[in-house]
Amino acid sequence: MEPKENGSELGQKIIDGPTNPMVTPLLNDLYQFTMAYAYWKAGKHNERSVFDLYFRKNPFGGEYTVFAGLEECVKFLANFKLTDEEIDFVQECLPGSEEAFCDYLRGLDCSDVEVYAIPEGSVVFPKVPLMRVEGPVGVVQLLETPFLNLVNFASLVATNAARHRFVAGKSKSLLEFGARRAQGPDGAISASKYCYLGGFDATSNVAAGKLFGIPLRGTHSHAYVSSFMSTDEIVDKVLRSADGKTTCEDFVSHVQTWLKKIQYSPSLSGIFSETNQSELAAFTSYALAFPKTFLALVDTYDVMKSGIPNFCAVALALNDFGYKALGIRLDSGDLAYLSREARNFFCTVERELKVPGFGKMVVTASNDLNEETIDALNKQGHEVDAFGIGTYLVTCYSQAALGCVFKLVEINNQPRIKLSEDVTKVSIPCKKRSYRLYGKEGYPLVDIMTGENEPPPKVGERLLCRHPFNESKRAYVVPQRVEELLKCYWRGSAGKDFPVP
Amino acid sequence: MEPKENGSELGQKIIDGPTNPMVTPLLNDLYQFTMAYAYWKAGKHNERSVFDLYFRKNPFGGEYTVFAGLEECVKFLANFKLTDEEIDFVQECLPGSEEAFCDYLRGLDCSDVEVYAIPEGSVVFPKVPLMRVEGPVGVVQLLETPFLNLVNFASLVATNAARHRFVAGKSKSLLEFGARRAQGPDGAISASKYCYLGGFDATSNVAAGKLFGIPLRGTHSHAYVSSFMSTDEIVDKVLRSADGKTTCEDFVSHVQTWLKKIQYSPSLSGIFSETNQSELAAFTSYALAFPKTFLALVDTYDVMKSGIPNFCAVALALNDFGYKALGIRLDSGDLAYLSREARNFFCTVERELKVPGFGKMVVTASNDLNEETIDALNKQGHEVDAFGIGTYLVTCYSQAALGCVFKLVEINNQPRIKLSEDVTKVSIPCKKRSYRLYGKEGYPLVDIMTGENEPPPKVGERLLCRHPFNESKRAYVVPQRVEELLKCYWRGSAGKDFPVP
Repeated sequence: MEPKENGSELGQKIIDGPTNPMVTPLLNDLYQFTMAYAYWKAGKHNERSVFDLYFRKNPFGGEYTVFAGLEECVKFLANFKLTDEEIDFVQECLPGSEEAFCDYLRGLDCSDVEVYAIPEGSVVFPKVPLMRVEGPVGVVQLLETPFLNLVNFASLVATNAARHRFVAGKSKSLLEFGARRAQGPDGAISASKYCYLGGFDATSNVAAGKLFGIPLRGTHSHAYVSSFMSTDEIVDKVLRSADGKTTCEDFVSHVQTWLKKIQYSPSLSGIFSETNQSELAAFTSYALAFPKTFLALVDTYDVMKSGIPNFCAVALALNDFGYKALGIRLDSGDLAYLSREARNFFCTVERELKVPGFGKMVVTASNDLNEETIDALNKQGHEVDAFGIGTYLVTCYSQAALGCVFKLVEINNQPRIKLSEDVTKVSIPCKKRSYRLYGKEGYPLVDIMTGENEPPPKVGERLLCRHPFNESKRAYVVPQRVEELLKCYWRGSAGKDFPVP
Repeated sequence: MEPKENGSELGQKIIDGPTNPMVTPLLNDLYQFTMAYAYWKAGKHNERSVFDLYFRKNPFGGEYTVFAGLEECVKFLANFKLTDEEIDFVQECLPGSEEAFCDYLRGLDCSDVEVYAIPEGSVVFPKVPLMRVEGPVGVVQLLETPFLNLVNFASLVATNAARHRFVAGKSKSLLEFGARRAQGPDGAISASKYCYLGGFDATSNVAAGKLFGIPLRGTHSHAYVSSFMSTDEIVDKVLRSADGKTTCEDFVSHVQTWLKKIQYSPSLSGIFSETNQSELAAFTSYALAFPKTFLALVDTYDVMKSGIPNFCAVALALNDFGYKALGIRLDSGDLAYLSREARNFFCTVERELKVPGFGKMVVTASNDLNEETIDALNKQGHEVDAFGIGTYLVTCYSQAALGCVFKLVEINNQPRIKLSEDVTKVSIPCKKRSYRLYGKEGYPLVDIMTGENEPPPKVGERLLCRHPFNESKRAYVVPQRVEELLKCYWRGSAGKDFPVP
């Protein structure tokens, strides 16, 4: 989503609503409506307020956060309008409220609201506002809960994804497999979206693939393997070659021939004897359905004694007809050890049976993976090319919530503060600007906040940056580049009588 | 949701779709569709399969789980139908798939599926199936991901709510305040629903209140308090009395009079001097808006030196006009200490100023509460009447996922098993029945599983119950009552040629 350069063509009408149709103005804490009523009753509802949305601490014990959820916030406010039915419900919830409040609600939209934000996907830090929301206090108060709901989990899971990418390394494929364990349907769909934003390559979630164009991945489960009894079940055994020129009339026998060849080849002989026939039937059948993209889950019975040999037999049989198998998935056991053993087996097949490239078969690993287990795999040495990650990724298991807050910092041009005995909970008053200062090598050095009317930091000029709560944390910085962090994403209607910065 | 007594009037047409319109057959892992295609290609798609949905371990280190999500599952399968657009997308995802598969998908529904389940809201235990899903393997496979998604978080958060209820005790009010920290919009709405099911009294989430009829709660935030500068801002100072007979022309002055009386009353004198005027203005204004339900957040500046005296002044002023204030909310600091101090203050006001019942003012506490903090408050001694719980409750922070699985246990009347080196991951084959056996006092003693055709346990007859994986865990039980756990919630179409139990 691009920042708005001017407010003249805002086009509320052309911005779609939020992805989830359940995101309505009623997705809100009741107290936002009781406050809206009390503001209105006190005649304060149109007072110009400024709220900062920020978090206090990086998640996962880490040093950074990836900001996400902004696009959904803009979609929400562009379509912010209470229906008559919703207004009736709100009135029921506020017993004793005056009828005229309903008229106020009926006229309410975000045409007087301005939103400044750091671009979605940016690396961000505690205390520096991710969003600054300005507008009449009555309506901005009603944005608090939806905005926090849309930003908190989005940023948390995007950060989690980025951390998984960091530990897995750039060359690995990262696949999000979390739909079944996510916190509800939307947890699944938004996890898919924001994991992709955070650096994943693909998802298993078909709905997310359709909604957001995220690449999809998936083959088969253990149930598919165990649903077969024997290869006798396979009725249609015919396989056309990849180039369409030849036909294998009995692919099942062809696979069995290869299985024997592997079994009795000098370097592989003795590694396994009888493989599981249910599994062999399932692999053969799956290959007949997907000869171009054959990838098998090899741990239903025994990885080295059955899964890998069965896979290789099918892959070699496919190879004879011009198809290249993709690889295997491991979903249990010692993934470091099994991936290395599988790699050895593939390389031996390549060497012994003269099948160039067979050793490069993709090894995908799944089974409750997370940052720590991937780090442990790295230390043990592994041959995994792709990680399928579910539960720990999408539920952000190691820290299930990010504590973004939405604090009033100014009203009627007066600064406001929330005090607390806990100094980390004290809000920083005043409408602010913030800047990212870059050093000589082009890397960012520090983010700073200034008052709205303070002069911006200048390139090449030495600047004393001070921590807002810790006097001893201070540093001189000479920025080589200065980037204003908050950009305008929503400017309300044009021509209003409040100042547009 | 009531179990179905017979299959003749199933009425797919009268069952609404899932609460969240994003719950469609595409909310699925891609591999369910690749498998559906491979089953279809192998001519196996109509083979009668039986899948068990169960979990392996109780969450939160506990000894029980509350089963939830069933109603949404039934709504999902009653409306299971792929649209043409969805079918086109699936076809795109399966390159090389045959056109005729689309016809198969087009005709797909759950009229051949049967679902047996333990009633929603039941206390359930590991390994015993929560749901048994029977039907053609092609379609049942497509139910796996949506069912797991709908049951996993629902059961987890309902269990979390029940645990919070247990630690807080029956007499306390429990309020779910999690919308802003939940994992996405649906995380919020379904958390509200299932926390209510798990024993909460109310939610702050307006959308959940509207959708499910859950009682709503909420008053105001710190922002409301700090949005005021002084009582001069209050323009309309008039308050009609509760009985409508008298009018207070200057409620602001009336409050200020009471504040002085409190300040100089013998037992309270010296506790506080000047209270915060911004806060006093906010409370007065809020009381003018909601005289019947006045409840104030008292920790924006200083609870004992400002919040409580200001609240009491407003509450006493309201009392003069026939209104009973509800109480206060504490959102920071030492909640045990502050709640006791607040109670003392209220009781002193009752005694000194002769206001019967003032000491019983409701004290609500919030601020990152969870099982452990409530338990700690109990041990310290507190005067809290209601707990508002958010983050830890709705994100299930201490364990963010429940590991429900969906395993094939039978196909074509043949038992199927998934093996694993980890014995806890081995599935229990065969279509099963399960029973809850009750003892003399009416309490349940044990849940047992039997094969489908084994005779059921009989009342008064001694029965040897054996743990499936641990030979040493066994016990004789003489049940006084036997309850069959799995009841029919979906029987497909009537008159099908498969046996209906």
